[in-house]
Amino acid sequence: MRSLKAMAVGLAIVAASPLYAGEWGTGALMVIIEREKGSVLVVDSTQDHKILGRVEGLGVLQHASIAFSRDGRYAYVISRDSLLSKVDLIQLKLTAQVKTGSSAVGLAVTQDGRHIAVSQYKPPGVVIVRDSDFKIAKTIPTGGKTVGLVDAPDNLLVFADMENDSVLVIDAGKADFPVIKKFDDVGAEPYDGFLTPDARRYVAGFFLSPWMGVLDLWRMDKVEKIPLPARGDLSGEMPVLKVPHLEGWFDAGGYLFAPIVGGEGLAVIDAATWKTVDTIELRAHPIFAVVRPDQRQIWINYAMGKYHDTVDVVDVDSRKVIKTLTPGGKVFHLHFALKGMVAYVSSYADNSVLVYDTKTFEVITRIPAQGPSGIFCTDRAGKFGL
Amino acid sequence: MRSLKAMAVGLAIVAASPLYAGEWGTGALMVIIEREKGSVLVVDSTQDHKILGRVEGLGVLQHASIAFSRDGRYAYVISRDSLLSKVDLIQLKLTAQVKTGSSAVGLAVTQDGRHIAVSQYKPPGVVIVRDSDFKIAKTIPTGGKTVGLVDAPDNLLVFADMENDSVLVIDAGKADFPVIKKFDDVGAEPYDGFLTPDARRYVAGFFLSPWMGVLDLWRMDKVEKIPLPARGDLSGEMPVLKVPHLEGWFDAGGYLFAPIVGGEGLAVIDAATWKTVDTIELRAHPIFAVVRPDQRQIWINYAMGKYHDTVDVVDVDSRKVIKTLTPGGKVFHLHFALKGMVAYVSSYADNSVLVYDTKTFEVITRIPAQGPSGIFCTDRAGKFGL
Repeated sequence: MRSLKAMAVGLAIVAASPLYAGEWGTGALMVIIEREKGSVLVVDSTQDHKILGRVEGLGVLQHASIAFSRDGRYAYVISRDSLLSKVDLIQLKLTAQVKTGSSAVGLAVTQDGRHIAVSQYKPPGVVIVRDSDFKIAKTIPTGGKTVGLVDAPDNLLVFADMENDSVLVIDAGKADFPVIKKFDDVGAEPYDGFLTPDARRYVAGFFLSPWMGVLDLWRMDKVEKIPLPARGDLSGEMPVLKVPHLEGWFDAGGYLFAPIVGGEGLAVIDAATWKTVDTIELRAHPIFAVVRPDQRQIWINYAMGKYHDTVDVVDVDSRKVIKTLTPGGKVFHLHFALKGMVAYVSSYADNSVLVYDTKTFEVITRIPAQGPSGIFCTDRAGKFGL
Repeated sequence: MRSLKAMAVGLAIVAASPLYAGEWGTGALMVIIEREKGSVLVVDSTQDHKILGRVEGLGVLQHASIAFSRDGRYAYVISRDSLLSKVDLIQLKLTAQVKTGSSAVGLAVTQDGRHIAVSQYKPPGVVIVRDSDFKIAKTIPTGGKTVGLVDAPDNLLVFADMENDSVLVIDAGKADFPVIKKFDDVGAEPYDGFLTPDARRYVAGFFLSPWMGVLDLWRMDKVEKIPLPARGDLSGEMPVLKVPHLEGWFDAGGYLFAPIVGGEGLAVIDAATWKTVDTIELRAHPIFAVVRPDQRQIWINYAMGKYHDTVDVVDVDSRKVIKTLTPGGKVFHLHFALKGMVAYVSSYADNSVLVYDTKTFEVITRIPAQGPSGIFCTDRAGKFGL
């Protein structure tokens, strides 16, 4: 009830002038993608999860993603149809927009905050947009679809070319954005990539090769092939049933907890040796496996199939599922608010984002949202690769 | 020149109504303590290091420290004379203040953001202040001076009692803030403590014992004694020449780089085994050793003595000093802005904060400040123990 009231207030803000503009800090805002509506909902996790407003007109938001300006003031939203939008989280309005192609899958803000890079399927390549005037500064064509685009230290951008089995590095600190490194034959069909939390290694996952490709950014000399376990009757083969999102491969207690391609579980990989030391069985193939900021829990969703409505909580220490939640139909994403006392879980089918207390697992509030999918906290602004 | 102009604008904001209030995000603000003036200067690192304003009347700011609300909107400043102030970084004004004792050294914001805890020398203990009304919610007396106070996951507060050689844990999630754990005989005269970056272990340093005390918060069963190297003719003895600040003991590339008590260097400690694997010689006893957010550099100041004006930059990979800077008289503190492309370095004697490009080591701008000491970035709001 409180949430519905809050929402009405939020909508009023958007419709009228931003009366409350500036009356909130931007360090712990939650920005929720409303997929069918082509909008984002802005929520303040530090003000009892109050809806501050909604910003519309952001394009086709299937598989949309968000990155933030360093001050947390602006959300950059990339749509499936390559529309890049700049949303002001104080004034609660769209302030700039540019079409970067016809099919996009991800984006990254450069370390210096001056550019937003978009990874394109069509036309294949990376498009660099200047933040100051929101014009395209550079188009870097590639032979194939680009995936796993991240910002990295030293003002670099790293990504993979899905159709040419390569990993490329762009220097975003130079005026012409040169590709300073290209590694070929890294693995067959990279489909995603991420930066390790220490910002030192770029890791690519492959559809058709049973390894991870690991690039040490301190050495920048080769992409190492680290074997990845397959499981049970899938052993030795690489059928991809669903695509796990690699962003979930987070470090916790010195281990990486990685969704297994084609398997119903997580591989536990020693972050120092890159050896798989254990596996955790799950009820289905995980889509996201997100670690709570204090590294003691991993929350897992399945999004589709029989367990579309389910979230499992894995205890990092015991490596067991300690809690099973059923937030509602089609749990597409989940994200912890700053410092992890609460988790936001989107139930797409039920038009709700549920806010859970991560200690008691009780639902604190239910935020009405129209077909919510991705959820992003502004604290990502300070983290490399996010 | 630009900085001087910016400062004039900043002062105008403070004097008049906050014309620009709300026109900045709070994710990457730098808050600088002006020690003798009893004020803080607020700078936006994402707007060309522009001074937004100054807020005065914060008490005696020798050894002052700052913690932030989770949204980055408020800075909580604790003065040497136990005056706790709440500074609004949007409206640029003091919004609340309370006297928590007569001598204080540190503070922490609880994970839930509802309370601010202050560690007192006089009267000895910890004082808990409610954020909502800024009244004292609870006073927890201890026999001795309290040091090394940090917020920890699960809404805990951890600190050490300097005169009773103990480490204590408070549950800030319970109404009466009970001390849920007390470990005695952990080492002689703890003088500071910090939380490891994974938020799992609390580490105390001692004046008179040649070890670190490490409490695993996942187990909460004992404070382990981890030997700490002494060097050269100091070996085996523990004369304390200066007090290194333990906050500098940050993890970089799997190692802790720790100022050696009584020694002129850093110990390199394997974070997995807690064994000292190397030492890095320095020109003098380091005061702060701060790691760049991408973990590739450690910046070191000496603050006093012959090298009061010097900053050494250690390369984490080679463990060598790769650059020596002389920012000016009495370099009291340094802090990286979000994502580490620039470092802010305070020169107390020269009334300047220098902003360095951490790649080229050039000075980007010089911010006029009156006797600047501590510098704090709002991105600390999202980090445990800071």
